[in-house]
Amino acid sequence: MSELKVKGFTISLDGFGAGMNQSLENPMGERAQTLHQWFFGTRTFQRMMGDESKGVAGPDEDFAARGFVNVGAWILGRNMFGPIRGPWLDDEWKGWWGEEPPYHVPVFVLTHHPRAPLEMKGGTTFYFVTDGIESAYAQARREANGRDVRLGGGVATIREYLRAGLIDEMHLAISPVLLGSGESLFAGLDLPSLGFRCIEHVPTESATHIVLRKN
Amino acid sequence: MSELKVKGFTISLDGFGAGMNQSLENPMGERAQTLHQWFFGTRTFQRMMGDESKGVAGPDEDFAARGFVNVGAWILGRNMFGPIRGPWLDDEWKGWWGEEPPYHVPVFVLTHHPRAPLEMKGGTTFYFVTDGIESAYAQARREANGRDVRLGGGVATIREYLRAGLIDEMHLAISPVLLGSGESLFAGLDLPSLGFRCIEHVPTESATHIVLRKN
Repeated sequence: MSELKVKGFTISLDGFGAGMNQSLENPMGERAQTLHQWFFGTRTFQRMMGDESKGVAGPDEDFAARGFVNVGAWILGRNMFGPIRGPWLDDEWKGWWGEEPPYHVPVFVLTHHPRAPLEMKGGTTFYFVTDGIESAYAQARREANGRDVRLGGGVATIREYLRAGLIDEMHLAISPVLLGSGESLFAGLDLPSLGFRCIEHVPTESATHIVLRKN
Repeated sequence: MSELKVKGFTISLDGFGAGMNQSLENPMGERAQTLHQWFFGTRTFQRMMGDESKGVAGPDEDFAARGFVNVGAWILGRNMFGPIRGPWLDDEWKGWWGEEPPYHVPVFVLTHHPRAPLEMKGGTTFYFVTDGIESAYAQARREANGRDVRLGGGVATIREYLRAGLIDEMHLAISPVLLGSGESLFAGLDLPSLGFRCIEHVPTESATHIVLRKN
């Protein structure tokens, strides 16, 4: 059955999902490059970059690969698709990933600005959803056709879906980095009360992987 | 040179140092027993309990043992010494640990209630400090005589010392447990801005050990 899952989402030791001062030059925010170090070394990431011979196997790779298994659609918050503001018209922006984004399935982007679907190379089509997170999930689920819907982030979007009780499972990677400020994934949320417990704990040299699942 | 160090302090995946509803029956708070699982299996802990044959070696043990190396004095917040309230007079309470506490050095307890020093078996003397955290550190440092002062917690006390810029190093163990509520160690504190970075990252099956040190 189709579930809503966060996969491969990285947070810092102090619980932040992205650094401050996000910008076009530095979309993940300050100090956040090191946050994703566990992922950059994997075969899965290097394959996305076009040269999997550079990537290594191991538990980091296993989690990276699992992130793309049985995924029938994605949901992204507005800032995951594009910068908060830029020198272009919204309709010119085609996402961070160039002509062939690494999704290869329908991607539902939460936004306040209506826009026609954007079909890219390789099977990715971006749909822009203006009527809220539940609608986005319903649409993504329909397109996923029994497979899972992967929620890509960012933090604010994950928190909205958590509060709405819609997330079934989250794989998080905790990186050995302090960010100090930014968007806190957990602040003010009581995950056990929302039904979550930690069902997997796989520490590696680069990150501590945890899987939190709703009972 | 004497430094102020937090050692072996355990937090949950969501950053809490203790569960809610602390009480005499459950001094660490709800769900917090599992929080300290990494420590209970170590030789150091089992030796404290009187039977080190039950404990195992390994990185968890290494960190547990380091917690007692070169420690010349301790500082404890009020609740680490005793329950918030109980059916006894304050002066009857001699701490959680019985006649021979596991400190074996002077221990400075932060409190609002003046009380004469309490000498226990095995070298532990509790001193009750009513004139604030800087005074407690000055007194502990003097007693430590060149060795380190270990700050035992709890969360509120560590946060006070962090804000005052007095902590040099923190070894934290992140346990694969969600607490959901309680006292958050990091909330609202910007550790990098306070000068800290992660200088050690040792993941085990039971916890992710990190050492945060001030530049």
